[in-house]
Amino acid sequence: MSVRYRLQCSADAIDARARALAIEQSIEMPIEAVRDERVRTEIVGEVVGIEPSAQQHDRFDVVLALAIETTGDEPGQMLNMVFGNCSLQPDVELIDLDLPAATLAKLPGPRFGIAGWRAAVSPVGEGREGTGRALSCTALKPQGLDAPALAELAYVLARAAIDVVKDDHGIADQACAPFAQRVPLVQRAIERANREKREAGGALAGHRSIYAPTLSGGPRRLAAQLALARDEGVGALLCCPMIIGVPAFAELARAEAGVPLLAHPALAGHLRIAPPLLLGRLFRLFGADATIFPNWGGRFPHSRAECLAIAERAREPLAAHRPALPVPAGGMRLERVDEIVEAYGPDTMLLIGGDLLRAGDALAERAAQFARRVAGAGRVETETTGEDRAERFDG
Amino acid sequence: MSVRYRLQCSADAIDARARALAIEQSIEMPIEAVRDERVRTEIVGEVVGIEPSAQQHDRFDVVLALAIETTGDEPGQMLNMVFGNCSLQPDVELIDLDLPAATLAKLPGPRFGIAGWRAAVSPVGEGREGTGRALSCTALKPQGLDAPALAELAYVLARAAIDVVKDDHGIADQACAPFAQRVPLVQRAIERANREKREAGGALAGHRSIYAPTLSGGPRRLAAQLALARDEGVGALLCCPMIIGVPAFAELARAEAGVPLLAHPALAGHLRIAPPLLLGRLFRLFGADATIFPNWGGRFPHSRAECLAIAERAREPLAAHRPALPVPAGGMRLERVDEIVEAYGPDTMLLIGGDLLRAGDALAERAAQFARRVAGAGRVETETTGEDRAERFDG
Repeated sequence: MSVRYRLQCSADAIDARARALAIEQSIEMPIEAVRDERVRTEIVGEVVGIEPSAQQHDRFDVVLALAIETTGDEPGQMLNMVFGNCSLQPDVELIDLDLPAATLAKLPGPRFGIAGWRAAVSPVGEGREGTGRALSCTALKPQGLDAPALAELAYVLARAAIDVVKDDHGIADQACAPFAQRVPLVQRAIERANREKREAGGALAGHRSIYAPTLSGGPRRLAAQLALARDEGVGALLCCPMIIGVPAFAELARAEAGVPLLAHPALAGHLRIAPPLLLGRLFRLFGADATIFPNWGGRFPHSRAECLAIAERAREPLAAHRPALPVPAGGMRLERVDEIVEAYGPDTMLLIGGDLLRAGDALAERAAQFARRVAGAGRVETETTGEDRAERFDG
Repeated sequence: MSVRYRLQCSADAIDARARALAIEQSIEMPIEAVRDERVRTEIVGEVVGIEPSAQQHDRFDVVLALAIETTGDEPGQMLNMVFGNCSLQPDVELIDLDLPAATLAKLPGPRFGIAGWRAAVSPVGEGREGTGRALSCTALKPQGLDAPALAELAYVLARAAIDVVKDDHGIADQACAPFAQRVPLVQRAIERANREKREAGGALAGHRSIYAPTLSGGPRRLAAQLALARDEGVGALLCCPMIIGVPAFAELARAEAGVPLLAHPALAGHLRIAPPLLLGRLFRLFGADATIFPNWGGRFPHSRAECLAIAERAREPLAAHRPALPVPAGGMRLERVDEIVEAYGPDTMLLIGGDLLRAGDALAERAAQFARRVAGAGRVETETTGEDRAERFDG
């Protein structure tokens, strides 16, 4: 596999530093002490390129060839081999990773992908609600509310025709709203809202909202949560791969969920792994059907170019893998919907949480506005009301 | 719980920045939109202190009080609440975490602790080999060797009376030496060496080396590996908590291993979490019986003070939890044994890998020298040979 790093290093030391990195990320021992011929020729990492930065005299892109067999085709071990030890060396950033076709084919990848999300919010025979448009997503929050209060909130948001209602990522399996109590209540509230939309007829008759509760904890707890989520018929699941562990995400959640997986970037502290690689390509390869990331202009410092690169990595052709849905988030406001959908295109799910809740008593109305605007953005200009248009220029 | 962060921020913005961080790490929504009185008073994070750095005008230590109930007493969710989202904000470092006594008591902590390591290398009735001295540890490497070659290496190292022979952290479950083939072969090689030491009598008759293979992969693979390791009677296990996931480490490995756990810091470095907190306190609280960390003066940039702080955190009194064994590593050389043991004291396990293998045909001799020197350091000055003494001053 070909791995690109960015190193902070002086020009006269870069050759030796690159060689040391190749050793660190392969055999971790003095090369002269390796006596096995096969290990020397096939396992030891190799420096295949050193490119000075055009902007900074002490930055170099170093491309290493690392032996794919060291990963055992297992997602966790792959992370280990590309960034395990050198994560402890602050002069190293991981920029990119190219995997051979045979390895790509062995990694799980999204089970449902973008089409799976569309199908989930647009049941067969109930219209084409989810086709060809951007999707909307919001979060049940704040944590600390009890399960009935979260369910009531979920009802309002689903009745307003938001596509995906997820747990806030801080909501896990705490005493105030335990998973086993919360998930059935919220799921029933969502189903009630869906039934009412259907029975009311009109534009929302074919719309189905789905609930994505947070999976958390160790393997036993995860397995119990997966079983309960299946029994209750939830439509999607939310995971933090860097917290539950990439191997548990890929091996357990991806295999057992039976519904699309929404990956959350918590603890993915990205400074030294490029976000397009980790949140775009790798989370997708490990099985994420959608990936949440901090959009520009919100509470996080990511640039527009970086965010668009994450989306590109989530959706670009990649062996036979389904595309994953990019989910820009992190302090987005209703006023920015058109701008964001225009930037990302319709294969996108917008996540807005706090900015809806801010509406207080007008929550239902603001949530409906959000759902309508996402569904209509870049497609049905005439659906935009005058009020909406004014708001857009606030943003 | 009381959480200390270091923020890069200007003096006129720090109050607002600290409040924003308290929101980010608790309710993640505008506080004015929170209608539930209990959430406002008990769940919303609170700024309890802002201390300017004495050295840098744009650095502040911010202490937050976060609601312990948001963690659900689950290790992964605890990491999520203290550093999940703000890991994506590059101006934030996590410095320290103080947990209430009731929470400390609920976290797993080391099952065996330092005394467990000593017992493992010093069977009852076979002398007091492991008592009151530092322990030695080395790694089977390079990866890429097949299982019989690794077993042969393990035999040599165990025969030389090194206490703990672990897999290199890059060795997982790859085709060239699959776990199910490697572990029985290596374990038998270790047992053969132990038997020979016993039968040979003399100083090493009471010494028992133990093998610590690497656990890796998702829950199913972990469970299969744990079962096999138990069946084969291995004496310890190696895990990378940040790769397999802290919840899997705490819930599965800690509960099922039945032998001391050695935690490896792979992938733990990119996170902007202070190493004494993550590698010292948290890994211990999550169940590590020993914690490997990069020692100063090797291939990693950690300072002497930081390394000693990791060791202190691993061993200091902490509710009823057993102390964990600090394991300095990362490019250490035989010549530094005395210096290192003097710095850390006898409740320490030294890990040296490549520097032994460098000896080539003299591996057995150099490994024995390492084992002797660690066992004797700071205790039996007269065991140090002239040759050893000369080497020490090379370091």
